Amino acid sequence: MVCDILIQANTILTQDPQRTVLENAGVAITGDTITAVGPWENLSRRYTAGQTLNLNHAMVMPGLINAHTHAAMSLLRGVADDLPLMEWLTKHIFPVEKHLSPEIVELGAMLACAEMTRLGTTSFCDMYLIEDATYRAVDRAGLRVLGGEGIFMFPSPAYADTERGFDLVRELHERWKDHPRIRQAVMPHAVYTTTPEILRRCLALSQELNMPLHIHLAETVTETEQCLAATGLRPVQYVHELGLLTPKTTIAHGVDLTEAEIDLLAGTGTVVAHNPESNMKLASGIANVPYMLQRGVPVSLGTDGAASNNALNMFTEMTSCALLHKVRCMDPTCAPAQAVLDMATLGGSRTMCMPDIGYIAPGMRADMVALDLRAPNLQPLHNPVSHVVYAATGAEVCMSMVGGEVLYNDGAFLKIDYPSLLKEVSALRSWVREKLS
Amino acid sequence: MVCDILIQANTILTQDPQRTVLENAGVAITGDTITAVGPWENLSRRYTAGQTLNLNHAMVMPGLINAHTHAAMSLLRGVADDLPLMEWLTKHIFPVEKHLSPEIVELGAMLACAEMTRLGTTSFCDMYLIEDATYRAVDRAGLRVLGGEGIFMFPSPAYADTERGFDLVRELHERWKDHPRIRQAVMPHAVYTTTPEILRRCLALSQELNMPLHIHLAETVTETEQCLAATGLRPVQYVHELGLLTPKTTIAHGVDLTEAEIDLLAGTGTVVAHNPESNMKLASGIANVPYMLQRGVPVSLGTDGAASNNALNMFTEMTSCALLHKVRCMDPTCAPAQAVLDMATLGGSRTMCMPDIGYIAPGMRADMVALDLRAPNLQPLHNPVSHVVYAATGAEVCMSMVGGEVLYNDGAFLKIDYPSLLKEVSALRSWVREKLS
Ligand SMILES: [Zn+2]
Ligand SMILES: [Zn+2]
Repeated sequence: MVCDILIQANTILTQDPQRTVLENAGVAITGDTITAVGPWENLSRRYTAGQTLNLNHAMVMPGLINAHTHAAMSLLRGVADDLPLMEWLTKHIFPVEKHLSPEIVELGAMLACAEMTRLGTTSFCDMYLIEDATYRAVDRAGLRVLGGEGIFMFPSPAYADTERGFDLVRELHERWKDHPRIRQAVMPHAVYTTTPEILRRCLALSQELNMPLHIHLAETVTETEQCLAATGLRPVQYVHELGLLTPKTTIAHGVDLTEAEIDLLAGTGTVVAHNPESNMKLASGIANVPYMLQRGVPVSLGTDGAASNNALNMFTEMTSCALLHKVRCMDPTCAPAQAVLDMATLGGSRTMCMPDIGYIAPGMRADMVALDLRAPNLQPLHNPVSHVVYAATGAEVCMSMVGGEVLYNDGAFLKIDYPSLLKEVSALRSWVREKLS
Repeated sequence: MVCDILIQANTILTQDPQRTVLENAGVAITGDTITAVGPWENLSRRYTAGQTLNLNHAMVMPGLINAHTHAAMSLLRGVADDLPLMEWLTKHIFPVEKHLSPEIVELGAMLACAEMTRLGTTSFCDMYLIEDATYRAVDRAGLRVLGGEGIFMFPSPAYADTERGFDLVRELHERWKDHPRIRQAVMPHAVYTTTPEILRRCLALSQELNMPLHIHLAETVTETEQCLAATGLRPVQYVHELGLLTPKTTIAHGVDLTEAEIDLLAGTGTVVAHNPESNMKLASGIANVPYMLQRGVPVSLGTDGAASNNALNMFTEMTSCALLHKVRCMDPTCAPAQAVLDMATLGGSRTMCMPDIGYIAPGMRADMVALDLRAPNLQPLHNPVSHVVYAATGAEVCMSMVGGEVLYNDGAFLKIDYPSLLKEVSALRSWVREKLS
């Protein structure tokens, strides 16, 4: 048989329903789809390929899925750390964001795409301002995105009022709906930046256009207190009464939740995008992920924006996730490696509402990355899942592929002009500093 | 003037007492010592060098100091995770360790040295069994070590009884005392594996031979309870009454400490080697590092062994440290980046009892690493310290140098035969599995 690409790998960590791990194995790809997975001996006999990728020194795994981020904020990486939340937001983040232009958002998103490609993330869920510019970056960079224009009750750099915000979502939907790697969600920013009427319209729009819904929810105790004061309800109950909790909804954070609220999320099939590093860095708290998993809540994993993390690195995010819950519960069996890897792959596909990504099997999209096993921190290889969650840094990634297209291979970015991107990003340093002072 | 090596760097993060950061700067090195640091224009005019390292794309910083590890355990990376402590120790770690030979310890230590070199650590403090083999690995690999044979009240693979253990420490002292990069400490394993008499003799020996002292202490609540039951005292008070708390003593962990005990550590000048990732993974608890820093306790940072971490990566350890204390205190200003980087450099030099490492300045040992700033996760560069603590993975390290000798440069290990090491480590996989079953 003929296929476009044949990958030969030392190990394949498929993440398929049986969690199959293969040694000396291969993957056949045609177009953007995986057509076969199996022992190399077998595949190499059956297939004739246009291109063969020799990854004998590497472990192939599904590309990781970053379930919550604000890609363009990578330009603000490190401008302000170790500050109280409100000072950080009002003195450092907002003053820069109010000057955002499409060009700057596109540049920031390009940098984020390069970082994710380099560190093994192939898909991400993005909420930001002027999201059209992020889609342009994703189109150029080759990643897969579920994006959304942040909907606020006040003007944003993308629209003069909320009404225009809704128009913009429709426009973006029309513009991008046939793109094979770009899908849109309706993304009300949070309960404290919207009104009940806005949230109702967001839900209606998501139903009308068959879009997922994504909202920051239950991030901090302060949010809960404000929501209680304003509506008499805690955030989860408030959005539930508006009808927002569905299997196509992802709430980002879910830190300040009661067990009853988690039960409600489980009952409604709502997805939680867990962002442990952002929650730690901003001192928001620790989401009760072990209880979520126990109750069957679909949990995905995200980095949040680079201004509060400060890297879009899903490998170190997995490490933090696995370690944090163990010490929170004072139980080393909490958040085992396999459960955490599942969040970063299968959980991510739930947030993205893309059932054809997240594991390696025939018929799935060919979104894969390879880790160079010659890295000393990945030796010896006793347990692939353990290495991925606890030992890898992400920088061992030596190949990243989305939809059968190789984006990064052996030290080189193949789809973007990375040296030029670096120059543009460097040039923007002074712009950021200017807006801050 | 003439020097051996001249480094040209984009940025130098010196960690000197003023925390000077230089751009377009250089370092001059003669023998194992830094002779000058300053603007490149100035240095390049003043010095003629045998070798020039062009690191125009990189940030040079002090090599990180891993203040507590068990290097040879890298062979057990990932053999057993997510298990209760006693099951992990008795069913997975001890069964392998009882078969240790000098050859296996040396191989494990070599792998650990390669990993640390690759990920920016140039010095480490090591407690293990058959430590002579670790010294041989360090001698070959080029790193700097403060090592110690673990002293127990029972036989170890290195000695038949504790008396022979003390003889062995003296022998090792004689054998290695003139080595420029290898220094020895007296290392009683813990209070629960020794007797008061053994601890007294450890102290006496450390005073007689002018050696630092290093002990696991206050790692878990269980340890405290056992110590209370056996001696009527909590661990810190117990070792204090034996005279063990001095500025030349490092206690590893210091998790289960009262504020009064931390005050006592501060008063005696005792160093705490903080191992946040190991404490998280084994669910031991969270050391009260913010209070230690507030009281002036010297705090260093360690990875502990690869069997409980699972990487000897001081960059990700810094990230975990900075994030963990913020969420523990629910205060984002806790454990700021600079304080954490100080632990991994200046704090480490306290544990090592080597005041001539930990920062870049004339007269200091030339132990430095360089981070390639072209990595997308290090862009844009607004704040070098922030990037080192929050954004770097360690794999951005493109050059590692100890005592003026370049160990790793531009993807290649220069002092060790890394491909051969990889083969030896691979071959040992089956040995470990055999001992486990
Ligand atoms: Zn967010
Ligand atoms: Zn230890």
